[in-house]
Amino acid sequence: MKSGKLQTAVVGATGYAGLELTRILLRHPRLVPPLLLERSALNEAPRDLAEVFPVLSGNGGYPLQALSWPALKRQGVELLFLATPPEVSRSLVPEAMAQGLRVIDLSAAWRLQRREHRAVYQFEDEDSVSAAELRERAVYGLPELHSQRIRQASLVANPGCYATSVILALAPLVDAGLIDEQRGIISDSKSGVSGAGKEPTSGTHFVSVADNLSAYAVFQHRHVGEILEQLHLEASVLTFTPHLLPIPRGILSTVYVYLNRPVQPVEVEETLRSFYEARRWVRIFPTPSLPQIRFSLNTNYCDIGFCLADDGRRLVLVSCLDNLLKGAAGQAAENLNLMYGWSAEEGLA
Amino acid sequence: MKSGKLQTAVVGATGYAGLELTRILLRHPRLVPPLLLERSALNEAPRDLAEVFPVLSGNGGYPLQALSWPALKRQGVELLFLATPPEVSRSLVPEAMAQGLRVIDLSAAWRLQRREHRAVYQFEDEDSVSAAELRERAVYGLPELHSQRIRQASLVANPGCYATSVILALAPLVDAGLIDEQRGIISDSKSGVSGAGKEPTSGTHFVSVADNLSAYAVFQHRHVGEILEQLHLEASVLTFTPHLLPIPRGILSTVYVYLNRPVQPVEVEETLRSFYEARRWVRIFPTPSLPQIRFSLNTNYCDIGFCLADDGRRLVLVSCLDNLLKGAAGQAAENLNLMYGWSAEEGLA
Amino acid sequence: MKSGKLQTAVVGATGYAGLELTRILLRHPRLVPPLLLERSALNEAPRDLAEVFPVLSGNGGYPLQALSWPALKRQGVELLFLATPPEVSRSLVPEAMAQGLRVIDLSAAWRLQRREHRAVYQFEDEDSVSAAELRERAVYGLPELHSQRIRQASLVANPGCYATSVILALAPLVDAGLIDEQRGIISDSKSGVSGAGKEPTSGTHFVSVADNLSAYAVFQHRHVGEILEQLHLEASVLTFTPHLLPIPRGILSTVYVYLNRPVQPVEVEETLRSFYEARRWVRIFPTPSLPQIRFSLNTNYCDIGFCLADDGRRLVLVSCLDNLLKGAAGQAAENLNLMYGWSAEEGLA
Amino acid sequence: MKSGKLQTAVVGATGYAGLELTRILLRHPRLVPPLLLERSALNEAPRDLAEVFPVLSGNGGYPLQALSWPALKRQGVELLFLATPPEVSRSLVPEAMAQGLRVIDLSAAWRLQRREHRAVYQFEDEDSVSAAELRERAVYGLPELHSQRIRQASLVANPGCYATSVILALAPLVDAGLIDEQRGIISDSKSGVSGAGKEPTSGTHFVSVADNLSAYAVFQHRHVGEILEQLHLEASVLTFTPHLLPIPRGILSTVYVYLNRPVQPVEVEETLRSFYEARRWVRIFPTPSLPQIRFSLNTNYCDIGFCLADDGRRLVLVSCLDNLLKGAAGQAAENLNLMYGWSAEEGLA
Repeated sequence: MKSGKLQTAVVGATGYAGLELTRILLRHPRLVPPLLLERSALNEAPRDLAEVFPVLSGNGGYPLQALSWPALKRQGVELLFLATPPEVSRSLVPEAMAQGLRVIDLSAAWRLQRREHRAVYQFEDEDSVSAAELRERAVYGLPELHSQRIRQASLVANPGCYATSVILALAPLVDAGLIDEQRGIISDSKSGVSGAGKEPTSGTHFVSVADNLSAYAVFQHRHVGEILEQLHLEASVLTFTPHLLPIPRGILSTVYVYLNRPVQPVEVEETLRSFYEARRWVRIFPTPSLPQIRFSLNTNYCDIGFCLADDGRRLVLVSCLDNLLKGAAGQAAENLNLMYGWSAEEGLA
Repeated sequence: MKSGKLQTAVVGATGYAGLELTRILLRHPRLVPPLLLERSALNEAPRDLAEVFPVLSGNGGYPLQALSWPALKRQGVELLFLATPPEVSRSLVPEAMAQGLRVIDLSAAWRLQRREHRAVYQFEDEDSVSAAELRERAVYGLPELHSQRIRQASLVANPGCYATSVILALAPLVDAGLIDEQRGIISDSKSGVSGAGKEPTSGTHFVSVADNLSAYAVFQHRHVGEILEQLHLEASVLTFTPHLLPIPRGILSTVYVYLNRPVQPVEVEETLRSFYEARRWVRIFPTPSLPQIRFSLNTNYCDIGFCLADDGRRLVLVSCLDNLLKGAAGQAAENLNLMYGWSAEEGLA
Repeated sequence: MKSGKLQTAVVGATGYAGLELTRILLRHPRLVPPLLLERSALNEAPRDLAEVFPVLSGNGGYPLQALSWPALKRQGVELLFLATPPEVSRSLVPEAMAQGLRVIDLSAAWRLQRREHRAVYQFEDEDSVSAAELRERAVYGLPELHSQRIRQASLVANPGCYATSVILALAPLVDAGLIDEQRGIISDSKSGVSGAGKEPTSGTHFVSVADNLSAYAVFQHRHVGEILEQLHLEASVLTFTPHLLPIPRGILSTVYVYLNRPVQPVEVEETLRSFYEARRWVRIFPTPSLPQIRFSLNTNYCDIGFCLADDGRRLVLVSCLDNLLKGAAGQAAENLNLMYGWSAEEGLA
Repeated sequence: MKSGKLQTAVVGATGYAGLELTRILLRHPRLVPPLLLERSALNEAPRDLAEVFPVLSGNGGYPLQALSWPALKRQGVELLFLATPPEVSRSLVPEAMAQGLRVIDLSAAWRLQRREHRAVYQFEDEDSVSAAELRERAVYGLPELHSQRIRQASLVANPGCYATSVILALAPLVDAGLIDEQRGIISDSKSGVSGAGKEPTSGTHFVSVADNLSAYAVFQHRHVGEILEQLHLEASVLTFTPHLLPIPRGILSTVYVYLNRPVQPVEVEETLRSFYEARRWVRIFPTPSLPQIRFSLNTNYCDIGFCLADDGRRLVLVSCLDNLLKGAAGQAAENLNLMYGWSAEEGLA
């Protein structure tokens, strides 16, 4: 650390999550400005991130440099953020860790412990010894569940955006043993378009999305495995349906569970509150008030509310977050703060 | 009928559904232009509907006249559409029927047979003899379920928009006895803002709705009773959660059921197709393709698609419609066509 | 004509304007369903237009067939619509006319008479004899200006969407000699995203467009030439600035002119009204009421309103239309109606 | 100042600009949390701002207290922000200044020096001695033009959002004497809906605004007077047309001027750059790149770009800002920083 501040680097700052991450790191009081790395900048003229995102312009330069391990060493980088597609993270993480870097990977590359959950990604190095070793070292970076292990981690697998919204809604109830899993759990989740990435496709064309809503990847979304593993659920218990909203960012998950005994609303609220008591970035809404997507936009909060039917058994949870913050870059900064023993608010409040 | 065409009248053309209804009636080949009636126009200067909705201007006049039963008689009105709040319809329908008019009421005033379902509306005339009599005559105006009775009806209670989307998704499966009701049915429904009516409120303010999604009226929405009655379900079976989408119009309901035996997708598709075989305004999407809201906008279709889990038991249905057409005015025109023995397409194709 | 109805064909039905055109032609009472042609369908399985646009499904098939001149002849096609890029129209139009077909081309290929205005398109056949001949035969398909010539035309060059909105706002005032051209004319125009076409690009990505407004192609937009030619203006007189709106469709042009003598608002209104007196598809709004984009959506109207400053010299005109209807497919249908002597309303009302 | 930090207070924190202001003040390093005052809270239960804006919840309380001058004195308030309607500011400012408070008023109450420009507001105290005195003391709070006077000011009249975007685009060119005012200046401005305030009206209903664009208040908008006064223009020179965009926030003004001699683009760029050289919150875009609304959202920047016609005389300027930040609360914080000699970035970067 020069001047007592940490030097970090980001691969993938030109994506939506990478931009948000860069902005957080730039204002983080414990950090010097992060290095911004590109994997394929060799033959191209050096660029500045403000050319890609003009919102950044006027505050000085944000040069993008080609990724080079020796250069990173020379520049004193200690921690590397990867805001890259999972297959890229699969190849970069072993190299980075061989260099002695700590890594926070925003992709799905290292989130999953069970082979059947990884199958959807078809990783080329699935059967390598190196991958098996890294998998053991990887910690799922959901601070509300794994803060102790994250503190020590050399490799943090930052959770998926949908997965974060669903896991945080359900974890307290699973933990309390309140859910009747035999009756099934349903998460009807809705996301803004930035969750689909910056690549222009017919599905992200404005005319396809505006004035519309669509369900997709029913029974097949990649985030299901994370939810099952983190909540220790059988695959047949969870039905997860993502939808594409005509908004740039934000997620709302409506989660349906049946309780295994009739309870009062106050017990549900207490279960949620006590589980997240010491947690900075979860807000519990008092029933019957419910979170809305815009309450959490541009914040690092996951907001959770609920309504309980008169029968005391049917419970509807609503969970909202900003998919680029608590669902990606903000949570990555939380993990950074844990890994270096800093306050959960640094860079985020 | 002058010139062999039917004279109708509309109360409430100045609302969103009333406008759509008026536009359909104006182009309906079996009708002369409808009379447009206002209940409180006495002291005000006569207005034209094009002043309220400039989209109509330039095509001649659409004068609004004060509602007067003698005048209706003189003008040869045979059928009256009510696009009015339920409490208004409660008081107008008895008067209209006393005049010998047939009535299609777009409100919830006469949709519900069971007292507990009507409770939420707090009708003042709940216990009157007249109301009881009208209730017996009222036919729930969902053509896919009640076409025979609608043909003969003097009072058609046009279904709610959410209710239409949910009932049509579930009816074939309920009818086939495929649903395991013990495990519960969930409808996670999302609607555009026109469903909330034209009244400006903090909840319909553009800044409240844009870039947002919110759940509301969980376990308490007025349309639940219609769904329960039409599908013969116990109240505890159905969980219905409406959400407000940042779009002007359209509904998508994602409906979750568990089947009481494992089936193949082809059986689900066949069940849906055969149920709606002779129906003009339901489209079944071949799995795994799913309807989207924009496919049904400005049409009278209810679009239904589904995905079945590998276990053959967990079924997700997606149902889309335009809340102002199949969810209101279009369905009213279907009922008109049934009541007069016309083709289901008249005024709608 | 079989059964007294005209057989038409459309190349480019898979684009936004092509879809709207197809829908109009399908409901046009004087036509049999149009043939839908693709230029590159040879090696691919035949497709149906409803696969591309599911909104069409359920109404029977819309097969796409490969474009073949002999097949068109056999099928009795008399008139061909081209909803293709300009360079495609440049090559197809000579072939089509050699077959004796009448052509309505929705592209810019044949709109411009002056070489300097065509330069921006860089047509490969710019200097060919064939192109020069076709240019002479081509009629600019703005019915409000050229109805006589359109009636006789074998090749109609359907106007650009922006150009239509600007020309129609200005033509009556230019015609009346009211504009002080020395002070310049400014059109600040705003368009929905469908005007940019269906190709996914970074500029049409939902996240790029939503919550945003941007100006583009200042002093360089391709439609400027059309406006200058149609209004007989010097290039230095007109400043045209297009903007991209976060809406799917619709154009609003705010047009600023200075009058060469002070007038009363009534004179402006009268000038507009008398110019468009016999025109079916222009609506003049009484000052100070102004058109809005949504008033013209899903209609074939061009709506025009204005405000005049107290000095009687500064005039602001507001012109709105649906870029896919009056700005493209609807106007093409108007031209069809003119070419066959049918009412201006056929297929459009 | 307790603990060396300044105590401020805000009247009107429950409005859109008031919320943004409160958020800035809460994170401002030189301030203790502001007191949040309501004018009519006497009979109502005390409320918390997080009840009005749930986005704030979870960070501790934001109690709203009734406005009382003695209480403000006791609590050590030195500076008062008014985010209130102009007529409210007209009555509160004299009282506040009588208490020895410095005031930053976000309303239009004290922005205008010339009677004809104030006429549109119809202030009841227009002719009072007190109003005349305050008018003399009031400084128009545009830091780029009046930083010296703002430093000393006891009453700062924070500029209007539209006015800021237009004045900042034009000031350098007016200052350089480059504009041919005889040919007129046109500002075609477009604003998001938050500029219309939080009051639900038919004009702010989601269904009225979405998929739409509309011009309004042509030749009559209240901000015109500010622009004329600050740029020393004759009323007949400026034509200003505001439009309502279907976005929650942001302004883009497209400003058209004719130069009184032909220039090169580099001269325009240099004129803009040198004028704003020492200014923290204006960004000049290198021609032909242009600012877009989303580049300035959630920032305090006013972004300015331009395109010059080949003739070197027709100049189009594009100016963007976030109407709630640089157009209101952010600019108020800039003024605060000037008044206390702090860096222009405090609370804003």
